[in-house]
Amino acid sequence: MKLAELVTLCRGVLDGGDATMEIRGVGSLSEAQPGEVSFLSNPRYSQQLAETKASAVLVRSDWEGPHTCALVRVEDPNRAFADIAVSLSPPALTYPPGVHPSAVVHADAVLGDDVHIGPHCVVEAGAQVGSHSILMASCYIGQGVTLGTACRLHPHVSVRAYCTLGNRVWVHDGTVIGSDGFGYAPRKDGSWEKIPQLGIVVIGDDVEIGANVTIDRARFGATRIGKGVKIDNLVQIAHNVQIGENTVMAAQVGISGSTRIGSVVQLGGQAGLAGHLEIGDRAVVGAQAGVTKSVPPATFVSGYPAMEHKRAMLLQAHLGKLPDLRKRVQALESHDEDGV
Amino acid sequence: MKLAELVTLCRGVLDGGDATMEIRGVGSLSEAQPGEVSFLSNPRYSQQLAETKASAVLVRSDWEGPHTCALVRVEDPNRAFADIAVSLSPPALTYPPGVHPSAVVHADAVLGDDVHIGPHCVVEAGAQVGSHSILMASCYIGQGVTLGTACRLHPHVSVRAYCTLGNRVWVHDGTVIGSDGFGYAPRKDGSWEKIPQLGIVVIGDDVEIGANVTIDRARFGATRIGKGVKIDNLVQIAHNVQIGENTVMAAQVGISGSTRIGSVVQLGGQAGLAGHLEIGDRAVVGAQAGVTKSVPPATFVSGYPAMEHKRAMLLQAHLGKLPDLRKRVQALESHDEDGV
Amino acid sequence: MKLAELVTLCRGVLDGGDATMEIRGVGSLSEAQPGEVSFLSNPRYSQQLAETKASAVLVRSDWEGPHTCALVRVEDPNRAFADIAVSLSPPALTYPPGVHPSAVVHADAVLGDDVHIGPHCVVEAGAQVGSHSILMASCYIGQGVTLGTACRLHPHVSVRAYCTLGNRVWVHDGTVIGSDGFGYAPRKDGSWEKIPQLGIVVIGDDVEIGANVTIDRARFGATRIGKGVKIDNLVQIAHNVQIGENTVMAAQVGISGSTRIGSVVQLGGQAGLAGHLEIGDRAVVGAQAGVTKSVPPATFVSGYPAMEHKRAMLLQAHLGKLPDLRKRVQALESHDEDGV
Repeated sequence: MKLAELVTLCRGVLDGGDATMEIRGVGSLSEAQPGEVSFLSNPRYSQQLAETKASAVLVRSDWEGPHTCALVRVEDPNRAFADIAVSLSPPALTYPPGVHPSAVVHADAVLGDDVHIGPHCVVEAGAQVGSHSILMASCYIGQGVTLGTACRLHPHVSVRAYCTLGNRVWVHDGTVIGSDGFGYAPRKDGSWEKIPQLGIVVIGDDVEIGANVTIDRARFGATRIGKGVKIDNLVQIAHNVQIGENTVMAAQVGISGSTRIGSVVQLGGQAGLAGHLEIGDRAVVGAQAGVTKSVPPATFVSGYPAMEHKRAMLLQAHLGKLPDLRKRVQALESHDEDGV
Repeated sequence: MKLAELVTLCRGVLDGGDATMEIRGVGSLSEAQPGEVSFLSNPRYSQQLAETKASAVLVRSDWEGPHTCALVRVEDPNRAFADIAVSLSPPALTYPPGVHPSAVVHADAVLGDDVHIGPHCVVEAGAQVGSHSILMASCYIGQGVTLGTACRLHPHVSVRAYCTLGNRVWVHDGTVIGSDGFGYAPRKDGSWEKIPQLGIVVIGDDVEIGANVTIDRARFGATRIGKGVKIDNLVQIAHNVQIGENTVMAAQVGISGSTRIGSVVQLGGQAGLAGHLEIGDRAVVGAQAGVTKSVPPATFVSGYPAMEHKRAMLLQAHLGKLPDLRKRVQALESHDEDGV
Repeated sequence: MKLAELVTLCRGVLDGGDATMEIRGVGSLSEAQPGEVSFLSNPRYSQQLAETKASAVLVRSDWEGPHTCALVRVEDPNRAFADIAVSLSPPALTYPPGVHPSAVVHADAVLGDDVHIGPHCVVEAGAQVGSHSILMASCYIGQGVTLGTACRLHPHVSVRAYCTLGNRVWVHDGTVIGSDGFGYAPRKDGSWEKIPQLGIVVIGDDVEIGANVTIDRARFGATRIGKGVKIDNLVQIAHNVQIGENTVMAAQVGISGSTRIGSVVQLGGQAGLAGHLEIGDRAVVGAQAGVTKSVPPATFVSGYPAMEHKRAMLLQAHLGKLPDLRKRVQALESHDEDGV
């Protein structure tokens, strides 16, 4: 794409640079190479713009600052960049309707219109796959599973028997939905008796789940993931957990059994939540926090054990001054002794 | 199932409610819907019973408290509920003996009686699969692997060459047994030379392993998982780790190389253990603990770095009072100055 | 192998023991059984040597100490042991060139010389697999992916569209390369709009990646893993992360989006790094550390929030003495009151 075309595409104004220059790709300010375009949205990266190797950079209409590359002035550099990135990316993948001959689809499974069943998939008896859904290679859809319309499962996903996914649910590679919950009763000899895990997992519409996530089926009833929830990679969700709408959780979060999480909650990476807790709507849990008690709505907690973030920061600050405090106590003690 | 049938099934006594009512499912007190049955085992959930939508609730024979639903009085509500849950659940899945035509089983593999080899499985040369074992879809059984009788591997499990599993071992989806241990020797130029990982993994009878777990093969000899061990999802077990009988570990635990864990140990979720440690029998490691030293038998440790739980709690309490302590030191200092 | 053969193999000198004894295997001092050989490299394990059940132990030429087993005196016990371990291990697996008939390789994919494509693999259109590369069972190679020469992918690996791997890259089972980055823009109603993840993952030569790892594709441009990097199991690498050469990271590490890590950095197990940080060359991050700020080169940080390790240790020591400090303040207060 010529730089001039790019300027037209994003309805911008070219400031410097050769309009006939070829633009081959996109990159962040620090990564972009000559022949690539970048963007500056947040002014705190202005220094990166001064040093970028990019041939052209999208900036706000009124931006001023040092630069050696061409500028393209636009109203919203972030959005304009997204448009250009799509134009310069490889064409989106397409998944034509049809069942690959190597897939094993049970005669009693029900496939909607225009579904794509990739190579080496398995769809067991009684499973239903909604219209326009895509199963990429080597997915496993257990007995009696229901997938809504326009779902997309990437390779190596397992959905175990009787679980249900809503519409437009995307699941990335290697994720497991409906593995047995971790439940055992102690026997007197120290060994453990398995408690049957008879329930299912129910996933709402518009949920996206990352790669190698594990979501256990309920002991009975259902582990529920609400509409619009977004789950990053390697997250663990135990049996009977309930998650409200539009909650997001970063990678490697772990949620113990029967904990109930409200709507629009945010869980930071590697946070761990004990079992049987209630996390209120719009609560925020910091990265690596260890949550041992329920959290009220709209509260930000962090640390281990997790407490209100402000208090965690305060205690952290006090801890940092502890060497000084000890010196002050020593000084008082020596005065005290002098006094005695 | 009619409510009357349910009462008979669990040998209970009906207290209120319509014996001809249809019961369609089960659920916890907080989740159950009309037409479903629930149970109260722990009296601290009595408030949930008062508010449940369940049509009937199993309670202890002598329980008293506010309720609007039918009660079914039984000796052990927990166990009675489990029996009913089985009766009301979809029929258990069956895996008829046979090798699916899409499976690739080497001519030199040995299959016991009545094994089920699901679609797209691979069983390499010299592998042995014990009688009545079930491999669900897309499992990989490497060269020379031995599985005992009545094992169950869910979809997408890998067992790498020469590893051995005992009898009745269950493995959930996506778990990897026998990947290479993480071992490299530094070269002078900063790069790393791979140390061959020549050992195997040996897993005892009656072990259950969750989904997307990783258990590395030994550098030499064996990484050993004792009889009756239960491992939750996303756990990492490094090379040459030794785990005693009936030890349980919650999700996302990580155990570093050559650490030896005793019998009937409990590891909380996301706990991390350094390498070359000894964890004594019946020790308990709290969730998210970072264990940097060996732990004596029957000791409860928590926190980072992990210490005896009582001491960790004590220090945590002292930390919480640190702002107050600083004020007290300030007060002393101002008296001290006044005095001078 | 007879003990005499073993002595010859490692050019050692036999000290005690029956040269005709049969040696069947290898093991560490604490694990080895009669009929097995072990080694003592680090003198601090001398006590283990005194108690080992091994029939013979490799020791340094000049080692002296209590023992009941045969000794084999060699220059470098570590290296000699490695040689013997290879000799006594099952023969290395071989992967003859060829495409298994159950594999699904697109007509537009390009396979180099002598590649091994295992059963149930899928290689999509436009993908290139370099000479001598090995894909074990059920691997997925997306559209337009490039693998260099002599790569080895273990079962169930996914490499998503357009990602590129260098030469001699090894990937263990279940790992996912190129899943979508975790990026959403908030809508006013609390729901989240997916930000397209248009970039790729670029992996350098001689990288080894453990099992069930997840590496997300960039929002645009590339997530980059430098030459010679070693990644342990269950690690999460978010979109647009950049990792320098020969950096190593232990299991369950999580790296948030756009963080840049230098060369020869070491990240301890379960460490978590926030997004948009810079970690300098040769920095060391302790196990379970929570890194919230950039780390200068050659700096060792630990704890949460991560700080210089020496300071983290100092504060930990002060925290441990806090109960004592409180008593001292109480004593001063009671003197103070007495004084008043």
